[in-house]
Amino acid sequence: MKRNLEMYLEGIKPACKEAAAAARERADSLIKPPGSLGRLEDYAVKLAGITGSIKNGPLKKCVLIMCSDNGVVDEGVAAAPQEITLAMAANFVKGTTGAAVLAKHFGADIRVFDVGINSDVKLPGVTDRKIKKSTGNIALGPAMSRAEAEQAILAGIEAAESAKNDGYQILGAGEMGIGNTTTTTAILSALTGLPARSITGAGAGLTPSAHEKKILTVDAAVKINAANASDPVDLTAKLGGFDIAAMTGVYIGAAHCGLPVVADGYISAAAAYLAVMFNEKIKDYLFLSHVSEEPGYLHYMRLLGMEAPLCLNMRLGEGSGCPLMFAVIDAACAALNNMATFGEALAGSGEEYLNNISGAE
Amino acid sequence: MKRNLEMYLEGIKPACKEAAAAARERADSLIKPPGSLGRLEDYAVKLAGITGSIKNGPLKKCVLIMCSDNGVVDEGVAAAPQEITLAMAANFVKGTTGAAVLAKHFGADIRVFDVGINSDVKLPGVTDRKIKKSTGNIALGPAMSRAEAEQAILAGIEAAESAKNDGYQILGAGEMGIGNTTTTTAILSALTGLPARSITGAGAGLTPSAHEKKILTVDAAVKINAANASDPVDLTAKLGGFDIAAMTGVYIGAAHCGLPVVADGYISAAAAYLAVMFNEKIKDYLFLSHVSEEPGYLHYMRLLGMEAPLCLNMRLGEGSGCPLMFAVIDAACAALNNMATFGEALAGSGEEYLNNISGAE
Repeated sequence: MKRNLEMYLEGIKPACKEAAAAARERADSLIKPPGSLGRLEDYAVKLAGITGSIKNGPLKKCVLIMCSDNGVVDEGVAAAPQEITLAMAANFVKGTTGAAVLAKHFGADIRVFDVGINSDVKLPGVTDRKIKKSTGNIALGPAMSRAEAEQAILAGIEAAESAKNDGYQILGAGEMGIGNTTTTTAILSALTGLPARSITGAGAGLTPSAHEKKILTVDAAVKINAANASDPVDLTAKLGGFDIAAMTGVYIGAAHCGLPVVADGYISAAAAYLAVMFNEKIKDYLFLSHVSEEPGYLHYMRLLGMEAPLCLNMRLGEGSGCPLMFAVIDAACAALNNMATFGEALAGSGEEYLNNISGAE
Repeated sequence: MKRNLEMYLEGIKPACKEAAAAARERADSLIKPPGSLGRLEDYAVKLAGITGSIKNGPLKKCVLIMCSDNGVVDEGVAAAPQEITLAMAANFVKGTTGAAVLAKHFGADIRVFDVGINSDVKLPGVTDRKIKKSTGNIALGPAMSRAEAEQAILAGIEAAESAKNDGYQILGAGEMGIGNTTTTTAILSALTGLPARSITGAGAGLTPSAHEKKILTVDAAVKINAANASDPVDLTAKLGGFDIAAMTGVYIGAAHCGLPVVADGYISAAAAYLAVMFNEKIKDYLFLSHVSEEPGYLHYMRLLGMEAPLCLNMRLGEGSGCPLMFAVIDAACAALNNMATFGEALAGSGEEYLNNISGAE
């Protein structure tokens, strides 16, 4: 299993500098002040580096949603009961959740995976990659074994590969797992040394006393597990969840098969950072989407050294930010593809245009 | 003419509080933590207040682009020659500029207006509402007379009304006018008392010496014209442009006929603030789009007491941010329209779903 993960990590190629440079040259030749489309230009250039082509899009889109339960909910750290993980997985398939509706609106498909829902139910339309029913309670010990962490990461890698084989050209990483802002915050605390009080949000809407319990739980989990902050497998196994591990795999898998991949919010950004810890080149394939309202999100952005462009005060998760960012990336491509260059604007079809201009003097 | 403008201003109705409250109630009933879709919920609720219906969208979209020249370019404050205003107006019609490409990509139409291009050319596809060929040089005196300012505002109002009559359901305000970051900055300096040096950007890419000239020009214009900072007509006439005035009219006209209207970047935000100075209720109809890279943009956001959600480092103008925001607003509507409520998720078609859930225990 270990060998297998390493094989994927070693197979990640850097983006193509030549294609990116050619796309930047085209962006600079378009009829606008240089750089005036800002990040739209950057995204189109980055995508060119990934695909090796100057012109891209509209891309075939899919959000991969990793569903799993977290043992830490035993501590009373979540606003919703654990059964909601299963219930929402069913609603993804029905197309009625926030992420599902936004994906459909923007022409993206979704694929839903059970990597550890605490139930024996096999939901129709949900791919069964269950590692086991829920992780352990991180306040008392590790969430999972190293082997289980790697197994969950591989499930994510394979989900990305399978999406690539089915013709998808851009992926998003989403999740559903009651309790996963707690695990994500524990990983952040272990990574940065920051005390839980300074980085723990109210999740899906905690009471003040439950919020206090969450803070104490994060600190306890970090202390008891003493994870190695430079080892992404150890961080995931001791403090994470199957959802986070599988999303980490989505980023690794996307980079391995040369697909751009969009992070959603807090949990998704944590998984992205863990993936980048494995292999820095994954950043070549990674796009952030929205600035989550979870206070820890900004820390993951800083760790990644990247910024998310959409400030929508969202904190839903599920992958709900990915479809919005797919739309921004497609728009960036459209601008690069379809705007006239200064050369085209002054020559080509524009005899009438030239007459107009000379008539202006 | 004055009476006419006042008639429009007095005819603006506040948004419907009942419809907005009903939309908020629906947003809170959807299968997600309350408020977790952040600004998407706010936009859908605001739109409900405008239309009086809980469910809206996808909306029929149009960006109204006001093109005009500015006499202040005589001072050497612009990176591009004045002829570019006419040339870009022609390119809007050909669909090859940034705003035109983005509008088409997101299913929005554009309408291009000549409110003061410094040319006798009649461009096919451009509506001729020319006040006159270019404003005066604000470094030496007023840009235009009060009567001309009101005439340009009315041109914008009528453009909005005409779009409403043609079935558009959301408008955007865009512009093209070499030199218009200088006029916009002069208005901002007059409004806030801030010295030009603290708020003047490099526009479309000025050299350091041209940037210095621009700063001195703004200060000189503010001093020589001594505009009344509480009179939007005086500010526009003395320091503005026909483009800014006509965009102000677009906001007034949209609010008057009950249409949502999206601001683009720096110049568009200035016009929005001038419109709000005329009538505070216009804010009920106004959506900001992106945070312009022009340093003065943040001041207009503060004056408006509103925030733009898209941080894309754009500084193109033309209305290029509007189509992106149209997409966000349509997505907000889709979420409100199509997500399941907790009631729907637990009842209705979901016998199989209920079986799944009961099987989970």
